[in-house]
Amino acid sequence: MALRAALRNKCGLSGLLSVRSSCSSHGRVCASPVAQQRNNSTSPKIKVDFDQSTGVAVMQMQSPPVNSLSLDFLTEFSIATEKLEMDKSCRGLIITSSQPKVFSAGLDIMEMYMKSPEHCGEFWKAVQEMWLKLYGSNMVTIAAINGSSPAGGCLMSIACDYRIMADNPRYSIGLNETQLGIVAPFWFKDTMINTVGHRTTEMALELGMLYNPSEALKIGLVDQLVPEDQVVTTATQTMTKWLAIPDHARQITKSMMRKPTIDKLTSNRETDIQYFVNFITKDSIQKSLGMYLAMLKKRKG
Amino acid sequence: MALRAALRNKCGLSGLLSVRSSCSSHGRVCASPVAQQRNNSTSPKIKVDFDQSTGVAVMQMQSPPVNSLSLDFLTEFSIATEKLEMDKSCRGLIITSSQPKVFSAGLDIMEMYMKSPEHCGEFWKAVQEMWLKLYGSNMVTIAAINGSSPAGGCLMSIACDYRIMADNPRYSIGLNETQLGIVAPFWFKDTMINTVGHRTTEMALELGMLYNPSEALKIGLVDQLVPEDQVVTTATQTMTKWLAIPDHARQITKSMMRKPTIDKLTSNRETDIQYFVNFITKDSIQKSLGMYLAMLKKRKG
Amino acid sequence: MALRAALRNKCGLSGLLSVRSSCSSHGRVCASPVAQQRNNSTSPKIKVDFDQSTGVAVMQMQSPPVNSLSLDFLTEFSIATEKLEMDKSCRGLIITSSQPKVFSAGLDIMEMYMKSPEHCGEFWKAVQEMWLKLYGSNMVTIAAINGSSPAGGCLMSIACDYRIMADNPRYSIGLNETQLGIVAPFWFKDTMINTVGHRTTEMALELGMLYNPSEALKIGLVDQLVPEDQVVTTATQTMTKWLAIPDHARQITKSMMRKPTIDKLTSNRETDIQYFVNFITKDSIQKSLGMYLAMLKKRKG
Repeated sequence: MALRAALRNKCGLSGLLSVRSSCSSHGRVCASPVAQQRNNSTSPKIKVDFDQSTGVAVMQMQSPPVNSLSLDFLTEFSIATEKLEMDKSCRGLIITSSQPKVFSAGLDIMEMYMKSPEHCGEFWKAVQEMWLKLYGSNMVTIAAINGSSPAGGCLMSIACDYRIMADNPRYSIGLNETQLGIVAPFWFKDTMINTVGHRTTEMALELGMLYNPSEALKIGLVDQLVPEDQVVTTATQTMTKWLAIPDHARQITKSMMRKPTIDKLTSNRETDIQYFVNFITKDSIQKSLGMYLAMLKKRKG
Repeated sequence: MALRAALRNKCGLSGLLSVRSSCSSHGRVCASPVAQQRNNSTSPKIKVDFDQSTGVAVMQMQSPPVNSLSLDFLTEFSIATEKLEMDKSCRGLIITSSQPKVFSAGLDIMEMYMKSPEHCGEFWKAVQEMWLKLYGSNMVTIAAINGSSPAGGCLMSIACDYRIMADNPRYSIGLNETQLGIVAPFWFKDTMINTVGHRTTEMALELGMLYNPSEALKIGLVDQLVPEDQVVTTATQTMTKWLAIPDHARQITKSMMRKPTIDKLTSNRETDIQYFVNFITKDSIQKSLGMYLAMLKKRKG
Repeated sequence: MALRAALRNKCGLSGLLSVRSSCSSHGRVCASPVAQQRNNSTSPKIKVDFDQSTGVAVMQMQSPPVNSLSLDFLTEFSIATEKLEMDKSCRGLIITSSQPKVFSAGLDIMEMYMKSPEHCGEFWKAVQEMWLKLYGSNMVTIAAINGSSPAGGCLMSIACDYRIMADNPRYSIGLNETQLGIVAPFWFKDTMINTVGHRTTEMALELGMLYNPSEALKIGLVDQLVPEDQVVTTATQTMTKWLAIPDHARQITKSMMRKPTIDKLTSNRETDIQYFVNFITKDSIQKSLGMYLAMLKKRKG
């Protein structure tokens, strides 16, 4: 609700958002003349190029260094997605990363480490909102996974309709929460089950498995591998195929497939937030996160 | 209920149905002397050869040109199936087509185009009845898919226990409803999920995908491919394997696997009919159907 | 409840259980000095070697000739498992067989043939208890399947977290109940669905299919094949990988995956027992069992 209100305000301001005069680095997706484009917005962490001639928006995640899903990032993401959702001329959304080697590193641990329960709760609500917007979108959503995509990055990917990943063996994707001593909540798990089935999910989640692209393709965690420089172009071509289907029939079908999973969260949001806050603020969990952060720091150093 | 009543009447008349004096074209399945056969009926759209010595009935769909599932066809189908169901000596049912190149083209669009809500409702009830009879059958049911099998033809196939398809790359099978601008209802979807899993169903239904035999085998939409002239003989051989299992144990097991899916429809039949009628009589949907019919006409011409 | 009470008594006596002075035949898993081992118990049918240095227990099923799941066997199994479960230092459990060529032949038919309803009910409760303990265990559970594993033996295997099978084409695994004229109950079915999916389960259970190791691997009924003499060592190595994950995160995840399936039985235990007793004491079923036993006798003779 709060988000929707915020969104309406933002939308009111959308005319003020600068239209990028140059988008050469993303030329493939916005090669059409600026005149055809109604709505190119640049915000600190998310860049949207919407091509009105095709009805397809490309969303670049551009939050250095690794597109961590911080509270700010998630809020921007949900606002941008909702804006496109409400624009009837936007039928498809491609999500990709402008950061090298990474699609998204997942939830920003700094939002849950040494933070107040209130902050953790607000953060978790934003994570829920991101998933609800994406998994329940009426648009065709394609993840153009041009880098590693652990944890929340994987969730974002499997919430889309189709996943194209760069065929680079250094990249990995998976819900690896248990490796950090935390737990992927039930709606992460449900989305994963809907994608790769019960048994694969069970083992993947218990072991916190990260899959390289070939393995991910084999288990059905991604749908297609292409050379790294063709991820977005392939997404664009694939989008054309999806958009050939009448919207209303595709949307009703998508909703029929996903509604039970979405309803499970929408009817339990507060409980889920409370559960998360109780869990994440435990001393033992905070200690795990601290150790993980120290390990990350050491690795960088 | 109405159908059961109709059935009882028909059964009362079954002695009047002519026994085909010659069945050379289906020699494989009724090679046994006529004396062994208790019940060979020929109706306009469905031909049943029941071999009492094996306990196996072969049902030939013979409604030119493409075995469209019209109201008449569906009614005959359900009556014929119920009749076999009630005959304790009939343990197995093989369903195949006597039409060249097609198993069944699916629901007859003429039953939903420019028709009254009443007619659409009656039609939909017959579609439900066909599925309930087949998916819930106590007999072993094998689809001998000797031609293309889109939409309702695919539903009929996946409602059986086992699917053998002709290995002809020109044939295709799938729930392609969205391509026509319509939507496969929840029980089509559930049957598909039970067959190929959630993720494959999601993509198949959203895109209205038709699979060639090799693809269908790969995703598990069919169980076996054989050369076209061996589809029915292979079905007969496979049936022997299934009939080696004690009936009561197999039937309880089958019911345990399928009852939840069947119950979902039986407890929502009227709602489902109402939903279908409201949807199909919409101007926009009628327009889609009209365009599709015009396209079909043009193709033939 | 009765079992827990029995367990407490047994535990009180555990100091009296003899520690095997020699475990050379299982040297791989208990090579550490006896001093490190807190709890090695030998009971008539189950032998447990717990290596406190690794936190891993190896349970040898040693009930000649084929580890049939008799009432005594099941009671011992549940007591041994519960004892390990309550020992916080025990984090992993490997289950294997000391009998040649067989992991477990499944439920002991003698417990259901010509027995009183009371006995059948007590037996079934013990089968439930075995599954509840194993499927709901907080320990990492690995089945080291070094022989054939039909029916109840298969259930035991799929209740574990991971399955390693000897790559010997003479061995087989599967829920083959229908071949005996009996029916795998809903929680066998649910565990199977959670392992290999709905469609494979449907066909496997209706036909009572037994799979050789290669087939079992292909459908996901087992996770890995290794040469026969490496089954337990591979299980030990695999265990190390699983134990690298923080226990609490893995346990919550496992519970999240399995709780709905477990709850279905725990909230219907009495009904399930009653259903089993009614079914198994039927004349027709008793006759089927008698014929099966006669066939087994003849085979041996």
